[in-house]
Order: sequence, then structure tokens, then C-alpha cells
Amino acid sequence: MEQLQISPADSMGSPGKEQRAAGVGILLQIMMLVLSFVLGHVLRRHRIYYLPEASASLLIGLIVGGLANISNTENSIRSWFNFHEEFFFLFLLPPIIFQSGFSMQPKPFFSNFGAIVTFAIFGTFVASVVTGVLVYLGGVTYLMYKLPFVECLMFGALISATDPVTVLSIFQELGTDVNLYALVFGESVLNDAMAISLYRTMSLVRSNMSSGQNFLMIVVRFLETFVGSMSAGVGVGFTSALLFKYAGLDIDNLHNLECCLFVLFPYFSYMLAEGFGLSGIVSILFTGIVMKHYTFSNLSDNSQKFTAAFFHLISSLAETFVFIYMGFDIAMEKHSWSHMGFVFFSILFIGIARAANVFSCAYLVNLVRPSHRKIPMKHQKALWYSGLRGAMAFALALQSVHDLPEGHGQTIFTATTAIVVLTVLLIGGSTGTMLEALQVVGDGHDAPLGESFEANSGYRAPSYEGESSSGSRFKMKLKEFHKSTASFTALDRNYLTPFFTTQNGDDEDEHDELLGDSRRGVLRGHD
Amino acid sequence: MEQLQISPADSMGSPGKEQRAAGVGILLQIMMLVLSFVLGHVLRRHRIYYLPEASASLLIGLIVGGLANISNTENSIRSWFNFHEEFFFLFLLPPIIFQSGFSMQPKPFFSNFGAIVTFAIFGTFVASVVTGVLVYLGGVTYLMYKLPFVECLMFGALISATDPVTVLSIFQELGTDVNLYALVFGESVLNDAMAISLYRTMSLVRSNMSSGQNFLMIVVRFLETFVGSMSAGVGVGFTSALLFKYAGLDIDNLHNLECCLFVLFPYFSYMLAEGFGLSGIVSILFTGIVMKHYTFSNLSDNSQKFTAAFFHLISSLAETFVFIYMGFDIAMEKHSWSHMGFVFFSILFIGIARAANVFSCAYLVNLVRPSHRKIPMKHQKALWYSGLRGAMAFALALQSVHDLPEGHGQTIFTATTAIVVLTVLLIGGSTGTMLEALQVVGDGHDAPLGESFEANSGYRAPSYEGESSSGSRFKMKLKEFHKSTASFTALDRNYLTPFFTTQNGDDEDEHDELLGDSRRGVLRGHD
Repeated sequence: MEQLQISPADSMGSPGKEQRAAGVGILLQIMMLVLSFVLGHVLRRHRIYYLPEASASLLIGLIVGGLANISNTENSIRSWFNFHEEFFFLFLLPPIIFQSGFSMQPKPFFSNFGAIVTFAIFGTFVASVVTGVLVYLGGVTYLMYKLPFVECLMFGALISATDPVTVLSIFQELGTDVNLYALVFGESVLNDAMAISLYRTMSLVRSNMSSGQNFLMIVVRFLETFVGSMSAGVGVGFTSALLFKYAGLDIDNLHNLECCLFVLFPYFSYMLAEGFGLSGIVSILFTGIVMKHYTFSNLSDNSQKFTAAFFHLISSLAETFVFIYMGFDIAMEKHSWSHMGFVFFSILFIGIARAANVFSCAYLVNLVRPSHRKIPMKHQKALWYSGLRGAMAFALALQSVHDLPEGHGQTIFTATTAIVVLTVLLIGGSTGTMLEALQVVGDGHDAPLGESFEANSGYRAPSYEGESSSGSRFKMKLKEFHKSTASFTALDRNYLTPFFTTQNGDDEDEHDELLGDSRRGVLRGHD
Repeated sequence: MEQLQISPADSMGSPGKEQRAAGVGILLQIMMLVLSFVLGHVLRRHRIYYLPEASASLLIGLIVGGLANISNTENSIRSWFNFHEEFFFLFLLPPIIFQSGFSMQPKPFFSNFGAIVTFAIFGTFVASVVTGVLVYLGGVTYLMYKLPFVECLMFGALISATDPVTVLSIFQELGTDVNLYALVFGESVLNDAMAISLYRTMSLVRSNMSSGQNFLMIVVRFLETFVGSMSAGVGVGFTSALLFKYAGLDIDNLHNLECCLFVLFPYFSYMLAEGFGLSGIVSILFTGIVMKHYTFSNLSDNSQKFTAAFFHLISSLAETFVFIYMGFDIAMEKHSWSHMGFVFFSILFIGIARAANVFSCAYLVNLVRPSHRKIPMKHQKALWYSGLRGAMAFALALQSVHDLPEGHGQTIFTATTAIVVLTVLLIGGSTGTMLEALQVVGDGHDAPLGESFEANSGYRAPSYEGESSSGSRFKMKLKEFHKSTASFTALDRNYLTPFFTTQNGDDEDEHDELLGDSRRGVLRGHD
């Protein structure tokens, strides 16, 4: 029976005591949250980049979890700390992913859209398969614990989900090159969606193994999920844009109503996709992008400020909580440390797989890009390095404990846990040093984000003329794809923005005039 | 085992299907929320006061619940709608109660503090006992279902919790007299805390019946809970004020950190009290009052705007959700309608008990008030009428189903359900008409809230000289109490405000100067 089973009717016990335990459990969680925020603030203030906020939260969770493990905490309190995947997927993840989409700077993102999609979709697929095959081969050659092939692929899928939180906060702090930032950001967000779709597809394949579906069916099924979820998300986003355009809620005293409705839409999108058996994460991500791009400008000025701060607040709470929660759970769970070999080789293999992902995709992208826009080697190295694993991998691994037979799920879980802790602490801690070593820091400092982007934007027009001489059929295909993202910008400017936002209305007050002006300014920049 | 048991490990089933059911369940809830907000907006826009937002939400819940009951909804989806008291007490109630304290206008509230406390503490006690005794007598005389005496008192306590939501939204809309507004508001908020303390005390008495505690012990125990919770709440509030005064977070780029910490404090207070076995509601209410009065002014300008809007948003979502949830659950639960007599007589008795509460307390309050400040009869009638029952009574009744033996709990639950639905729909719908009939509408329209209050404030100084001739010993006692609330204002002005807020600093920017100015203006008004 699936339900939010708080205080089940049959556990009569003493309700007072139960409520007390809940109180103590939640109290501890709040205290850790406050501690993380304060510690994170202090660290940032003293510019200590080798212990970023996410690592600090993870460490706090680990330490408190360790203490709770040693001491004789009551089981009733302890149970408030178990990592429940459903809680994670239904309540913690949606705000984080939505905020990723919502806070995405549309210009660098869309101008790198082709590259991001290549890295996130094709690259993650490559990384999953490479990891899966290597782990399988490792098992066959008795190097490590032997898993069946489908389970190796499941492990490959879940471990390919990179985490945006830690790396990006450092990138932002140091003022990295906008294009590199957009690549890392876009890839790590979209590949969560890809990894979860892949994992679910593989899980389905595993349970339907006997019915003998062929490879084509799997691909169709995967595309169905991905495209379906994306359409649902975009659809909900556009619906919200139209609602706010025509409902006339942007007058003063309806501020609260406006915000309530705005806040409900992302969750609606997430649950709509989940209800149809699609991927809520993919859906809410695209809802975030669409709502920021269209719906947001239909809000009143006050509501714009409020909703932006609201989603930022909720997602930072959720993010910090996820890392604490993860640290705590890692310290509390039983792990099968007997397979240290598995852990060691997995780390090696995911490094190889990430290299296969990044360098092959960068090669493909560079094939179609004009020379001044090619992804330089140092950016590729930074991309390779920034692939630390976080909450998504952890949550999927925890789910695999339920999905797979005893030993397999447990091994995958232990390996994932170790990988998450190591990559968050080591990679997260050394990103600053790495960025400085690769000399990709400071570009953003010299020129503000907007300008430095403006400087190398507008590259598309020459790209089709200047480079089409070396055209193999494959390169043509890639360019077609690239062109389609360019024509999307035109579509957006000429049809979508006027249709979904209040830009075309002269019947609005001064505030809308201002908005219109700024938007026209943006358009002029494109011309 | 008490825990947030989502997707228990032993219910292996198909995780995809479970997640889908959760998705559909939550999707339905979001759709009802959106519908409620939109419907509420339309109703308010057309000034249809006989169907306020809370009634509309309740009706939506009832209708959808009824439909779900008729149709063959899957159990897994249905289970997402059960009203879980713990979910209500841990996640829905805290924001509502905090917002009550946080949005309280301190001036009318503190100038009516004596009256409010009399109504909420003494009055609720009277109402509980009267209801309990009448229900017991009704049982003894075979008028209605017979309950043991302690259970009658438990019923009396839970049914004495009046609901602020519906009535107050109408009061605000119509612009009622500020003093009446403060009375109704303060009473309905504080009596929730009182009712829950009484209910818990009675529940404790019931389970410890055999150990033969005397009446004194019960009183001590009750005071312990009430005073302890209040101190915890006030303590957390003051701590937060000091933190924000000295942490120096009110600079621009720490906006998000500031808000995160501010948002965590109320919940911290709630859980602290619950963890100590005290009443979280009482605690969070006082934290709300203290944080608004002291901490709030230590925030940066942006954060002030944001947090005010944030708590408003969260509490309106929670409020609307509670009414929908309640309506849905009422339509879904099995009720023992065999005891219609019990329902009928309880409604009669709570009317009598409320009269005993309001008129006796008003008499006491009027004894000490100067003639121009006495509570007029029409205000007393409005107070009597505005006592509709809402979510708190419902949640406590649901808890009583677990606390009491089968038949008793079920009877109390059915009666409470019927009373909630009837009072919300009938009283909520007719409050507008009643207020107009009693001619208490429009005072607020003639003069803005602030002014009309300013006009009859500052009444305390004369009150002690002008009226002390008729002094019986009892009246002196009451006046002493009244005086203590007046001296609290002096304490606040001279010590608390300078100590807990940034008012005394000249090192702050223009914004703080402004705040200081306005506060000095307020103080001058008091002199």
C-alpha cells in the first residue's frame, strides 16, 4: 500500500510520544540545516573554496549520523532520518530541478543549445553504456563483483547523473567563462533527466526480460518517455503563460493569488508527468524554462521579485537538506564493504566513461562550430573534471536496492554512496584549484556576464556560409540540427513571445511599458 | 512505528505504479487547490459573501470526495487523500498559526490584550466545561449517546476551538471595527492553543485515571504546558531577534541566506516545543508575535517584503488545502450517522456554551474598562456568532478516534464533522449579513484602521483614576492584571525594543533611519 503513512491507525502506542519523537527528529534536521547555512556562509565569506557548501552539508550529515549511530538514539527518532526515495522524488527534487530551469540564463543556454543537448543526451548515453560494459567486463574477468548485463547498464545509467549544485556554486563565485558555465550547467541538469529515463527504461527491460522485447522497442519506449515528458512540461508552461496573460491578476491586491497560482504550476507539471507514467523531472525542467521565458514577464513587478526569491529559497533549502540527509543516511545505512574492489574499479570506469562522453561529444560539436566558437581543450578538461555525482545518483541507487535482488542492489548502493562522497568532497573541494590551473577563471570577471556573451554571440549567421565546404553527410545532419536551434530563436522572437506574453498590449500601465521596452532592447540586440 | 513511511521497503509491488498513483493523487489535490483559488477569487470579485473561500474549498473537497466515493478510484490513489492528523499537525498547521501571530497588528492586539486573554483562556475553559457537562447530562438523561465524563470534557475541549479563517476574511473585506476585529482574531487564535492544551490534559487524565491524580495536579500540568510552550516560543523569537541584529546579514547579496534562516525559526520553535512534549501551536504563535515585533525590523528591506509575502503565501496554501482536505475526508470517511440526536444536541449545547463564554467574559472585561471602552452588546453578539468550528476541531476529533474506544471516538468524530460543515457553511455564509444587521460594518471604512484605532487608544491612563471608586477586591485583581499589560507596553518601549532591534544604532543606512523614525513616531503617539 503506497501512501504517506504518518501515524498509521493500527500503531496505537501513545500518540504523544510519537509526536514527540517526530518533533525531536525534525528539530535535529532544522538544526543541521541552520548549521549548514551558517557554516556555508562563513566559508564563502572567507573564500575557502576547498570546502563548498554542499560538502559542508554532507559532512555535517555524516558526523551527526555517525554520532547518532554510536549513541543509543531511539528508533522512533532515527526513523525520521531514513532517506525515503519517494520523499526525495516527490518533495525535494521538484524544487531543485525547477529552479535549475527557472534560473537558466536563456541566452547563453540557447546559443549553446546544440552542444548541451549533445552532451546531455548523446553523451550521457555513451557514458552509461561505456560504464555498463566496463563494469560487466570487469565482472566477467573476475576483477570485481559480477552483475548481470542489464544491471550493469542500470548502474551505468544511475551513475552517469552528474550533480549541478556544488560545481556551479563555485563556478558562479569565481566568475567562469559564460559559455563554459552554460555547458556545465545545461549538461548537468539535462543529464539528470536523461539518466533517470535510461534507468527506468533499463529497469523495465529487466522486468520484461522474459517477454523478449527487442532493442528498437527500448529506444521507442525511451523516446516516448523523453518526448512525452518534454511536451507535457512545455505544454503546462505555455498554459500558465496564457493564464497569466489573460487573467488580469497583475493588479496590486491580487499579489498573493497570483503567487499562489504561479507556485502551483511547476508542481502540477511534475505530477502530471508522473501521473501519466512519464518523467516528472524532465517535465518540470522544461516547465521551468518556459515559465521563466514567457509566464514570468506576465506577472506584476512585485510578484516577479517574489517568485524569483521564493524558488531560490525553496530550492536552496531542498538542496542543503538533500546533502545533509544523504550524509546522515550514508552514516546510518548498513553497507556491504566487502566489495571494495567494485568501488575502486567503478570509480576508474566512470572516469573513463566521462572522458568518452566529453571528448567525443566535444569533437562532434567542434565539427560544426566555426573556428572562433570551438570548445577549447581546457573547457573540455573542465567539463570532464566537473562531473561529480550527487543526490540523483544516490536516490536512484537507493531505489535499485528495492528494484534488484539483495546482493546486487546493495553492492550498487554501496559503490554509489562511496562515489558520491568521494566526488563531492574531492572534486567539489578542488574545483576552484582546477579552474585556476586550467586558466578558465576570470573571463567573467573582466567583462560582466552579459557583455562577454554579447561579444561572442551572433556567431550563427557566418557559421553556415563559412564552414560548409568540408561537408560530409554526417556533418550536414549536425548542421541541420544546429540550424533548427537557430530558427527556434526566430520562432520565439516572432511568434511565441508576442503570443504568450503581454508584450503586444498597449492597454497596460507604465510597468508593462517598461517591460516591453527592455524586451524590445533585447530583440534589437539580436538583430 | 512512527515515521513518514513513504514507499515502505516491504511493499515491493511495482515502484512505477506506486509513484504513478502518488502522482495522480497529488495532481488531483493541486487541481482542487487551483480551482479553490480561482473560485474564491471570482466570488470575492463579485462580492458574494454567502460563499466565502473556505466554504468554497470545503464544498470542492466534499464534491470531489463524493465523486471519488461513487466511482471506483484505486485504493492507492485514494490513500493519498486520507486526513492524517500528524501531517496536519506537523506540516499544515504550523504555517497557519505562525501567520496568525505574524500578521497580528500589534497595537489593537496589545490594547485589547486583557480582553483577548480573558476570552481565550478563561472563556474557552468555561465553554469546554459547559459543553462537557451538558453533553454528560444529556447522556445521563438519555437525551443522547452516553459518554463517560472525562470523554465529555475532551469533546468539550476539542469543540471549543473556533476557527479564524473564514470569519476574519469577511471581517477584513467589510472593514469591521478594529477592536472587534482584534477581539475575534485574538480569541480565535489563542483559543486553538487553549483547546489543544485542554484536550491533551484531559486525554492524559483519562489514561492516568487509575493513578488517581487530583484536580490540582491537572491544573498544574495544564499551566506547565501552557506557560512552558509560551516561554519556548518567546525565547526562540528573542533568540532570532538577537541573531539577526548582530549577524549583519542585512546586506544585499545575503538576501537568500537571511530569508532561509528567518523561515526556519518558526518551525524550529514548533518542533522544540513538540520535542519537549509541550504544545507547538502555542509556541509558534508566540514566536510569530515576537518575530514580527522584534526580529522583522532587523531584516533588510527586501527580506522584509519577501518574508511577509512568503508566510502569507504558505499559510494561504495550507489553509485552502486544509479545507479541501477536510471536505474530501468528510465525504470519504465512514460515519456513524446513527447518533443524529448527539449531533443535534451538541450543536445546541455549543451555542449555549459559547454564550456562557462570551457574555460572562465580556461582563468581566467591562467591569474594569472605562465607560467609553466597554465592549458594546452588538460586539458581544458578533463575537458569539462568529464562533464557527474548523480544522483544529476536526483534527482533534480525528485524533480522538485513535485515543478513545471504538464507539465513543467515532461518535465524537461524526458530531464534530457535522458541526464543522454546518458552521462553516451556515455561519461562514451569513457572517456578512449578520455584521450588517448588527451595524458593526463600515466603522473601518470611514477611517482607516490605524486612525480609528489611534482615536480610541491611549485610554489606559484615565482608566485607573476614573473608575477605581466601585472597587471590590475582585475588580482590583482584574485591574492589576490590566495594569500589568499596560506596563508591558512600557517595558517593550524602554527595554525590549532597543535591546532586540537595531533601533539604537546610528551606524546603519538610510533604511534603518527610516525604520527608526517611524518607530519613534509610534512612541511619540503613545506619550
